Amino acid sequence: MSATFVPSHSLPTRNRRVLLARRPLGIPEPDDFAFDEAPLPTVDDRQFLVRNIYLSVDPAQRGWACDGTNYAPPVPIGSVMRALAVGMIIESRHDDFPTGSFVYGWLGWQDYAAIGPAQVLTHFTTPCVPLSAYAGVLGINGMTAYLALNDLGRPAPGETVLVSTAAGAVGSLVGQLAHAVGCKTIGLTSDDLKVARCLARHGYDVAINYKSAPIADLLNQRVPDGVDVFFDNVGGPILDAALRCMRTSGRVIQCGTASISSWSPPPSGIRNEREVLMRRLVWSGFVIFDHLQRFEAVIGILAGKINDGSLVYDEDISVGIEYAGVAIRSLYAGENSGKKLIFIG
Amino acid sequence: MSATFVPSHSLPTRNRRVLLARRPLGIPEPDDFAFDEAPLPTVDDRQFLVRNIYLSVDPAQRGWACDGTNYAPPVPIGSVMRALAVGMIIESRHDDFPTGSFVYGWLGWQDYAAIGPAQVLTHFTTPCVPLSAYAGVLGINGMTAYLALNDLGRPAPGETVLVSTAAGAVGSLVGQLAHAVGCKTIGLTSDDLKVARCLARHGYDVAINYKSAPIADLLNQRVPDGVDVFFDNVGGPILDAALRCMRTSGRVIQCGTASISSWSPPPSGIRNEREVLMRRLVWSGFVIFDHLQRFEAVIGILAGKINDGSLVYDEDISVGIEYAGVAIRSLYAGENSGKKLIFIG
Repeated sequence: MSATFVPSHSLPTRNRRVLLARRPLGIPEPDDFAFDEAPLPTVDDRQFLVRNIYLSVDPAQRGWACDGTNYAPPVPIGSVMRALAVGMIIESRHDDFPTGSFVYGWLGWQDYAAIGPAQVLTHFTTPCVPLSAYAGVLGINGMTAYLALNDLGRPAPGETVLVSTAAGAVGSLVGQLAHAVGCKTIGLTSDDLKVARCLARHGYDVAINYKSAPIADLLNQRVPDGVDVFFDNVGGPILDAALRCMRTSGRVIQCGTASISSWSPPPSGIRNEREVLMRRLVWSGFVIFDHLQRFEAVIGILAGKINDGSLVYDEDISVGIEYAGVAIRSLYAGENSGKKLIFIG
Repeated sequence: MSATFVPSHSLPTRNRRVLLARRPLGIPEPDDFAFDEAPLPTVDDRQFLVRNIYLSVDPAQRGWACDGTNYAPPVPIGSVMRALAVGMIIESRHDDFPTGSFVYGWLGWQDYAAIGPAQVLTHFTTPCVPLSAYAGVLGINGMTAYLALNDLGRPAPGETVLVSTAAGAVGSLVGQLAHAVGCKTIGLTSDDLKVARCLARHGYDVAINYKSAPIADLLNQRVPDGVDVFFDNVGGPILDAALRCMRTSGRVIQCGTASISSWSPPPSGIRNEREVLMRRLVWSGFVIFDHLQRFEAVIGILAGKINDGSLVYDEDISVGIEYAGVAIRSLYAGENSGKKLIFIG
């Protein structure tokens, strides 16, 4: 306990928080959340107090909010919604994390968080790109795009890379990274405006509105020579169709399953094990939180590309913590045009 | 054309053949085949005439006989059923393949075949183990067990390896090979007699009759700590249950889909992409015919193990080419106790 530190005369006294009010059924709705105000959290020894600036909105938050099959325990009902954010340290009891430096990490959907090093994904003193980028292209989205594509996809020049949610925070980067390798890049997205963005900004040679015709027909027409690497963020019927377009020894990266609204119970679908066998696929699951120790190196690589102009990123920033209630629903509805952030600074 | 070579005075004049009479619906039945007798085949330049001795019966023959999703074109109706066999060269027009030497390769279900080097998987002069072994433990079954387990399974000492069709021609070897690595080995098989064989002969620490209770319950009870490597030959509900027992970063080897009676159209099942993601699985397809260039080295390894007594193999040999009609059905019914061969020598 450290009453000497918090609150001090220079700090605000209230912390607006977004709580998980009940267990969502599928995609979280506004009524699944509650807003409250609490005293500022206590800063224990070897902790520090962070003023959140950009709250991240991520598809994975649906999984964290729900019960059922996931790689992390669900957020307890009544507690602050688990979220990544970028913020500034405004009070510190840890010498390695001085006041005035920035962190990206497990700060939650709230104004202030008292955390320790274990909750930090990235710590930096001087942003080398705009601060918001640390929650997206230099956060889990960029790390996922780079590491999953290269480690699991292993794209070679001349190969064909297919990406679902191609205009999203990850897909928009995968297209550019694969294109830079010398791959033919095919993006699947949900409307014609995003098709145009994929072609103009995200490195895609071909972009397909998957709602414009049956997906199997679209792939047969637009990708007749097949796919070497499928970077999948959606699962479901798009995955089923893409598996049936894979070339021999193709790599399938399962990075998300956004098209499936609930996994409890798991839905049925067409069986795919024969495709794995016949096409000698390598179908791998990817969770970015296995790779935290590599963030620093990849941030260096991607920041270099941003600063030399070879990697662009789009952001869709809402203002005000009140937006959090609809943010996940909006993300799953595809309403965002770039990495979804909430500015509360 | 080489009428000078065939038939000669020392050769028989008839070739009994098993023809694919019609396209099977699912597992081939006796009426899907027809028997005939034909003149001995003509031996062209750089070919040789082989007297078949052991005809191989393989689960893959179902896929070769059927239309639909496969890695090889289907056997044409009216032609000799595609099959591997071991035989002796009795006439040769190729200097590298002298009369009296042996081959294992694409000889078909018939007494005689005129083939060239492209149809040969293994060529040898002096068998170092009984001749029949070249069609099983030193044929595609042993090569599959060794290469799929090591290349795709990458078992480490102390890990748990689960195998479906554990008493089969491949599974009975996988158990022994994984046990030799220092893995805990779990075998799934279809009756209590095979359970006993798995424990006594095939290197399994645990063997489960998967028909004795719901498969998910059996796995939860008998493999409570989860599976690192799943060597799957069956697909279907056993695969679904096993995926849900995989440990993080587990490897799934899709080597066959024997539990699915037809893939046209593909059946439905529970969706598995969330398991791939959440458990960070690597799920790979394996087809042995991609690895022919490695047979010689692996034959050397496995023959060494056979001769030093560290690898045992079982065979179930029927006599007479007439048996071919029921052979595949019998194999899929699990009636064999070891590698299924037909002796016609």
